[in-house]
Amino acid sequence: MIQQEINIAGSKVQYIFNAGFKQLSKVCDKSSTVLITDENVLAAQPALFKGWKTIVIKAGEEYKQQAAVDKVIAQLIELEADRSTMLVGVGGGVVTDIAGYAAAIYMRGIKVGFVPTTLLAMVDAAIGGKNGVDAGIYKNLVGTIRQPSFLLYDINLLKSLPVDEWQNGFAEIIKHAAIKDAVMFRQLEKLDLEFYMKYQLPFSELVMRNALLKTSVVRKDPTERGDRKLLNFGHTLGHAIENDNKLAHGNAVAVGMVYAADLSHKITGFPETVRLINTIEQYGLPTHASFDIKKAMQNMKHDKKRQRDSVHFVLLEKIGKAVVHPISFKKLEQHLAADY
Amino acid sequence: MIQQEINIAGSKVQYIFNAGFKQLSKVCDKSSTVLITDENVLAAQPALFKGWKTIVIKAGEEYKQQAAVDKVIAQLIELEADRSTMLVGVGGGVVTDIAGYAAAIYMRGIKVGFVPTTLLAMVDAAIGGKNGVDAGIYKNLVGTIRQPSFLLYDINLLKSLPVDEWQNGFAEIIKHAAIKDAVMFRQLEKLDLEFYMKYQLPFSELVMRNALLKTSVVRKDPTERGDRKLLNFGHTLGHAIENDNKLAHGNAVAVGMVYAADLSHKITGFPETVRLINTIEQYGLPTHASFDIKKAMQNMKHDKKRQRDSVHFVLLEKIGKAVVHPISFKKLEQHLAADY
Repeated sequence: MIQQEINIAGSKVQYIFNAGFKQLSKVCDKSSTVLITDENVLAAQPALFKGWKTIVIKAGEEYKQQAAVDKVIAQLIELEADRSTMLVGVGGGVVTDIAGYAAAIYMRGIKVGFVPTTLLAMVDAAIGGKNGVDAGIYKNLVGTIRQPSFLLYDINLLKSLPVDEWQNGFAEIIKHAAIKDAVMFRQLEKLDLEFYMKYQLPFSELVMRNALLKTSVVRKDPTERGDRKLLNFGHTLGHAIENDNKLAHGNAVAVGMVYAADLSHKITGFPETVRLINTIEQYGLPTHASFDIKKAMQNMKHDKKRQRDSVHFVLLEKIGKAVVHPISFKKLEQHLAADY
Repeated sequence: MIQQEINIAGSKVQYIFNAGFKQLSKVCDKSSTVLITDENVLAAQPALFKGWKTIVIKAGEEYKQQAAVDKVIAQLIELEADRSTMLVGVGGGVVTDIAGYAAAIYMRGIKVGFVPTTLLAMVDAAIGGKNGVDAGIYKNLVGTIRQPSFLLYDINLLKSLPVDEWQNGFAEIIKHAAIKDAVMFRQLEKLDLEFYMKYQLPFSELVMRNALLKTSVVRKDPTERGDRKLLNFGHTLGHAIENDNKLAHGNAVAVGMVYAADLSHKITGFPETVRLINTIEQYGLPTHASFDIKKAMQNMKHDKKRQRDSVHFVLLEKIGKAVVHPISFKKLEQHLAADY
């Protein structure tokens, strides 16, 4: 077990790596804790929840809506949760997003901790304090930024995960490497998904490296005025095509990264699109998808990163170095129409 | 016009006293601002909203629920509000609570300003950053604490207010005096509601004094760990009887203050219950109400100030000095049963 306390925007966040789920009872008191998970996690690992008060939500991004939060609030009232109650999200990104959001607004804020059970949540979704729900098709339109008290990592929880969920997580890992860590990118190029699924030690090191990479970006820029924007690499188009085309998040991001790399080539002269494409393929992720350009453009106009007539697009200068570039919607549509 | 910038918990809040509504267009840009008001304010003063994008919500505490916020969010999407949009709540406490909450969660936080149109909102509800909605009968169970960018005071907006709305506001003014300001209490004793409704200058001074008194308490304790709790004087019982008995907030608080004064007498030896009762009556507020004790106790158990088996009750030691005292539910019920 590796414990590390990191201060993010004035909040102390406890990172507990290489842990087992059982250690949760040492981190928080069963009597004043409420777990929140989804039907899938509960069905896959019912033993985890024995003896804990647990709220179960429906599984899937399509239920990441205010209605789910309303139900969680109603159950917190029923369980007589008060200001000293700790809420713990045990699940993937949808669960941690909803748990973090519900904790942020219940009684104007109770403590929350996360036990991510997907690779995506471990290296990305559960880190950084962003929480919330979608509003219709608009992703994460509602929520807050608020840090959890702790994150507990048990990579054994990933064992029951299907391969495409691993791939999903690797999309964010490749993203991290592409924007911030050329050394990790070379490591990813040399190895592949099978290797990491098989060997626990290098895998848990990779998870920790990514969790800490994201944490360090968030620490320096908790409110997303500067460097944190770089984490949106692949996400502007990714988000715009994800829901309409029923793509897994990692798949949408992978497609978005390839598109952003193409655009980078045109604007910054980024010369390594092929390296990025090869790595994405190596981890079983798609490099393109067919989608309705007009609809994608419309969705982008509702993107939170929008600024009147333009959008902040994250481009690469080289592997390991990204920049934010404002692009007008007009120009973007021309690029999209030319490429797809 | 008196402008004052006050730093509350790291946020700069602009106070604009003795202003006219028209000055709003100097504070924020019409093209990137969305006003939010309720049907009553719109009907009473339609001219205010000419040329402003405006979201209109239903009037009344019974609509201060998540469903109203959901509608506001949907309209913000329709209006293509983005992260640079300023939301401005123009109305009473329900409007400013909903505007503040919607702004806190839309795109994980956009700027918000308030133009309070009731005395209660001017001296209390709009100040301090608390926002949110009720969950069923549980008041303010959901929300955040987040400071507005500005507060604009135009006391001419109160002219169309019925007398009981003025009384409502004076309940909080008397509360402020009772817990923090013996000099103001003596002034309130010497004068009466009629006087303040008639003479603008002393009235606008009273409003400013109260706004700044609450602000100063909030500044020192934004997250309600210490002194800010004192502002709950009269509110623990007040909240517990308000909705069930359809009492106006000020009336519920007035009744709650008298009860808290009685309890203070028993616990701290507070000797001035009669002065408090007289002043409350002088401003047209009730000093008692009939209510179901069992129901009130049950509501108190869902109060956010609850801590397992006890509640933090605000008591007076003397006029101008309040203390927080934890009282067990058991003891509280005995007191209630003896008194009512």
